[in-house]
Formats: sequence, C-alpha cells, structure tokens
Amino acid sequence: MNDFEFQCPTKIIFGKDTIKKLRYEIPQGRKILITYGGGSIRKNGVLKQVKEALEGFEYSEFGGIEPNPKFETLMKAVEIVKNEGYNFLLAVGGGSTLDGTKFIAAASRFEGDPWDILAKDAPVNDALELADVITLPATGSEMNCGAVISRLSTKEKLSFLSPKVYPKFSIIDPQTTFSLPEKQTVNGIVDTYTHVMEQYATYDVNTPLQDEWALGIIKTLIEEAPKVLRNPNDYDARANIFWCATCGLNYWISLGAVQDWATHMIGHELTALYGLDHGETLAIILPSLWRVMKKDKMDKLAKMAIEVFGANEFLPKSLLADITIKKTEKFFNKIGRKIKLREYGIDALEAATEIKKRFLERAVVLGERCNITPDVVYEIVANA
Amino acid sequence: MNDFEFQCPTKIIFGKDTIKKLRYEIPQGRKILITYGGGSIRKNGVLKQVKEALEGFEYSEFGGIEPNPKFETLMKAVEIVKNEGYNFLLAVGGGSTLDGTKFIAAASRFEGDPWDILAKDAPVNDALELADVITLPATGSEMNCGAVISRLSTKEKLSFLSPKVYPKFSIIDPQTTFSLPEKQTVNGIVDTYTHVMEQYATYDVNTPLQDEWALGIIKTLIEEAPKVLRNPNDYDARANIFWCATCGLNYWISLGAVQDWATHMIGHELTALYGLDHGETLAIILPSLWRVMKKDKMDKLAKMAIEVFGANEFLPKSLLADITIKKTEKFFNKIGRKIKLREYGIDALEAATEIKKRFLERAVVLGERCNITPDVVYEIVANA
Repeated sequence: MNDFEFQCPTKIIFGKDTIKKLRYEIPQGRKILITYGGGSIRKNGVLKQVKEALEGFEYSEFGGIEPNPKFETLMKAVEIVKNEGYNFLLAVGGGSTLDGTKFIAAASRFEGDPWDILAKDAPVNDALELADVITLPATGSEMNCGAVISRLSTKEKLSFLSPKVYPKFSIIDPQTTFSLPEKQTVNGIVDTYTHVMEQYATYDVNTPLQDEWALGIIKTLIEEAPKVLRNPNDYDARANIFWCATCGLNYWISLGAVQDWATHMIGHELTALYGLDHGETLAIILPSLWRVMKKDKMDKLAKMAIEVFGANEFLPKSLLADITIKKTEKFFNKIGRKIKLREYGIDALEAATEIKKRFLERAVVLGERCNITPDVVYEIVANA
Repeated sequence: MNDFEFQCPTKIIFGKDTIKKLRYEIPQGRKILITYGGGSIRKNGVLKQVKEALEGFEYSEFGGIEPNPKFETLMKAVEIVKNEGYNFLLAVGGGSTLDGTKFIAAASRFEGDPWDILAKDAPVNDALELADVITLPATGSEMNCGAVISRLSTKEKLSFLSPKVYPKFSIIDPQTTFSLPEKQTVNGIVDTYTHVMEQYATYDVNTPLQDEWALGIIKTLIEEAPKVLRNPNDYDARANIFWCATCGLNYWISLGAVQDWATHMIGHELTALYGLDHGETLAIILPSLWRVMKKDKMDKLAKMAIEVFGANEFLPKSLLADITIKKTEKFFNKIGRKIKLREYGIDALEAATEIKKRFLERAVVLGERCNITPDVVYEIVANA
C-alpha cells in the first residue's frame, strides 16, 4: 500500500425529507447565494423546499450554471458575490452546479486572474463557505474537493483540487432523483462506474481492501441499476445508487492505491469537440482504452472478472480481462448507453486526429504509468 | 437504507516513517501532554521518534494508562491537565491509551462529576484538542469518537460517544506493529472481525454496498492474517490489517445500516469478571450468540457464507448460516484464539449466572431488535 493522507470535513446528511435540515446547518447571520442550473429544481419542487427551509435567512439566487459549467458564467457570479457581499454559497442541483459553485467560492477570494486556478494550478489559499443539496448521483462532488470547469472561448475543460472547497455539508435526499430523466440516471451510473475503474483498474500496489470496496460499488451498481430504470420511484434502489456515486469519488476506495483518469481526460475532449454528455463519452472510451492498454490493466481486470462476473479463476488472465471488457460493454448497453463513436455519427479517425493534435500541443501524457502518449490516445479514440 | 448523518474531521496520516510529520500537525504554541500505556513504546523506539518530532514544543508525559483504561488513573491525568494548563493531548499507543485520552480530553473540560459522562450519558459540550500516534490495529479508535472506560471500584466497563473527541489527526505507521506480541496481533484481528460483524450481522434494511464493504474487510482479514503471523515484518500485510482495523470502526460500513453490539457488551462483563483480554472474550461470545440468535441473524450469515466462504448459494439458508458460524470459529482457532470458556478454565454456567444477574440489576436489554434479554444472555454465555 502506498502512503497516504486523508481528511474530509464534509458532513453528509442522507435520507428522506432531509432538505428541511438546511436551516440547522447554515450558521445564523450568513448572507446566502443559492446557485443552480437550468431550473429543473423549480419543476421538481426542490427549490421550494430549500426556500422554505431558509425562511428567516437572507438569500438570493444565481441560476443558469450549465452542464460542464462555464468559466464565463461563473465569473458573473463571482462579481455578484463580491459586489453584494455574499458569504455563503448553497449549490442546489447536480455535480455541474456544485463544481461551478466550488469555483465561485475559490475565485471570489482569489487575488489575480482566477483562470490561473485551472490553467496554472495556482494555489487556493482561501474560499467562501459552501454547501449543497445534491440532486444527481454521478460526480461524487458532494464529498470531494475537486471541480471540473470549461471555458467557452478556448474550448478547454480543466479541473482543480483544493481542500478549501470541500462542502461544509451535503444534503442527499434520494427522493429528489425520482424525477430525473432516464438519460441522466444512466449517465450518472456510467460516470460512477468509470470513476471507480479509474481508481481500481491500475497496477497493483497490494491494496486488497480498497479493491474489494471498489468492486463492491460495481457489484451494487450492476444489481441496482435495472431496479431504478424499471421503477424510478424505488427509494432503496435510488438511495443505493446515490451512495455508490458518493463513495465512487470520495477517495475512500483509492487511499493508498494508484489512479489513472485517462478515460476522463480523453472523454473531456469528446465533450468539448462534439458536445457529447460526459457519461456518453466514458462509455465509449473506457472499453477501448482497456483494449489498447490491456497488458497494463490485465491483473485488475482479471480479478474483476472473477469477483464481479463470476468467471472461473483458472481461465488465462488475458481471457479473464476480455470477459471484464465485454461484460462492461454489455452492462453499458443494457442500461441504454451506446459504446461506439459511430453510433453518434462521429468519425472515429477524425476525432482521434484532432484529440491527438490537442494533446501534442499541450504536451499531455496520461495514465497511471504515464505511458498513454498522444499516439496511444490516437489508437484509443480511433478504435472507440 | 436508513437515514443517516456522518462527519469525521480526523486527518489520517498513513504510511512509513510518518511519526516525524507530528511537528507539522500540532499547532505552534500548544502545551502538550503525551499519554501512553505500559511503556512498550519506550522499547520499540516509538516514544523516541515522537520526542524527536516534537523538538521545540513544550511537552510532558503521562504514562501508565492500562489496557481497559481505568477511570481512577485517568482522573489523575485530568488533575495534572487542569493544574498545569496542558491544552493538547497526544496519545501514543493502542486503543486503550487513545480511549483513555479521549476521556481525559472530555473530563478536563467537564463541569460536574466526569463519571456522569459514562454512567449517565451526560453530554460532552467541550473537550481538549487531542491526536494520536496509534500503534495497535484493533479498536478503530483512531477514526471514531467513542471510548470504553472501566472503573476499578465498581468493576464496570462503560462507553461514551461524542463528536468532540474525534482525534484531530491520527498517525498510522504500520512499521510500529512489527514488534507486537503475537497475542496482541491476534486480539486485534478478532476485535476487528467482531466490530464488522456487530455492524453487518443484523437485520437487512437494504444496504448492499455497506454489506459488500463489511464483507470486504472480513475477506481481507482472512487473507492477510496468516501473512502477518508467518512474517511479522511483512509491511504490506501489516498495513492491510491496520487499514482493516481502522475501517472496521470508522462507521463507513454501517452508515444507514443496523447495528448490534451485544457480543461486545457481554464480552465486557467477561473482562470485568475474569480479566480475559477483550479479543479473547469476543472469540468466545460471537459464535455462541450467533447460534442462540440464529433466526435473527440468518439472512446476513447466509449471505456471508456465499460471498466470503464460497458456499453454494442453493443450500438452505439455515445450513449456510451454520457454515459461517463454523468457518468463523475455524478462523479464530487457526490464528490461535480459543473459542470456549472452559478452555480458560472458566465455568460457563457460573459466568452465565453472574452476568445475567448484572444485566438484570442494570435492566439491560441488548441486540439490534432489543430481544437479547438477561435470560437470552444466560443462554449465550452458558453455551459459550
């Protein structure tokens, strides 16, 4: 096991009708800016619940944070925060809203050009207090200190990490997910599955417990996904899927282990270039990356075939790895996700050429062994 | 899944040669009281490492905290803390030292008789800052907010929980466990196994991920235990066992699930009456409790037989539960732990009579369904 340090100050408040607890969690006297996205929280009654819980508090709203939240939009919120003196941000919605809010929190207290936080890894020494009512099981942003932000003007999608942007608390009421469009439910499941694999399917540094826990999330996703798709109002299945999503990226499964994240980095480019949803890009790239990098991923994929898919442990490792790749594709297909670029009308060779060019320009090398060069990325995308 | 709230502020610093990081974690200007137990930390060099790391800080020592830390001893430390104005406690040693230190932290700031914290669940509104260098994988105390304290004068062993006594940080260097006597290594493994079972082997409220994680700890313990017993200096095996112990009682596996803790409560009485080690009592009580409460425990024990012990899923549930009970006894035996009271020369009927009497006096009813009455306790102990 590798050495590690870990500390997550976020308080998780999980369960039915928990939004009303908001008023006990936000310190008295705070001037709150409620941030949200496209307005689905108006339709499903979540915003109403939030406002009822905040009766007596001073608050205002900032809506319109996009999926793949845009730097340009967020900077408008930063201006409002600074001009009007807000000192508490409450994100209500999915991971994009929360990621965007983390950036607003950091940028509002940043001296200099906040873009440097993303482009130059400028340290975040201070941030506004923030918390969330999270309504989409997917990114795990509710219990981590990372955020992914896009910039329209340069078609870039970049991320930052800082302990300063851990949410103070996250309220998870699985009932808020009953009304999710099926597409978003599926994207969230694929996102969680891939988060887990980015942390699990790497080289082995002797972390059997972390491996068990990673595969435990995968087994649970495979069991519970058909239930929520069959009955979107199945509370327990929704709760289990949500807890899988939170635990898929709260770092618990990767402490002391080795991480990859190449699938995400390549996926981000497909989103930037073709506007595919994040979850759509992952279902395409993950299996292709595994085929190209099979030698590096073999041990963990073989272990997964035995533990998750019940394969015979005496089969050759290479065959076991193939089983995991096929079974993963089958799972993505079964829950309604396409697994090839051509199914979206995208020319794979063209995409591969463009993404290789971008990574060459930025001198990006990916993967847990830093051996996914732009040439390897080309191969992965061309075969996707 | 049941509703839950969770927040653990403790920072975990895990890995080789991490004790030297102490000096960066304790705020400047603190007056530190180092607390420890019987002095093994002198022999194995841990205390020396701690003192080197604290060069330049003002500190003093308080040794002699017993296994099953005694109220009487801890109150001496409380007096010293108050008289000499210490404002930071650093526990160095195992779970008993840390539990004792949590009590010192709470009692030093408590108005009234600190025994009420244990005997009357008096709320802990304030506590001294505390942290630890934990050197025994067993109690999980390094990442939770509980402590178990004994009182000599009344032969009682009681516990308290308070978010105020979460360690500020816990340093885990698995190398410090190389020199553990085999008996303590085994006790720690049995303790961890039982902690997990107290949280897993209850009635099902649809928590598949938590179940997977609980059983993941058990699988890892079964795999890694023989390795540390064969080679006490196997770093990875020691690290894996330690992380299992921490995760066995940091609440991650029981969030939203149902807990029991009857085995511990009965075991505490055996320690109080006969001086058996905590781990020794658990190995005796757990299988006997499962036999007596088999109907209540059946579903989870059957699931465990399939997932951990590879039993055929088409066997009758009752038989599957028996497999888990037998396999658990076999595991305890294999790592050198006795599983019957008579092996310690203790008359089971006599013990059962005495413990039943104590629980009747205190009107104690145990178990996740509150159906382990003093009569049932009699049966469990009599058959142990």
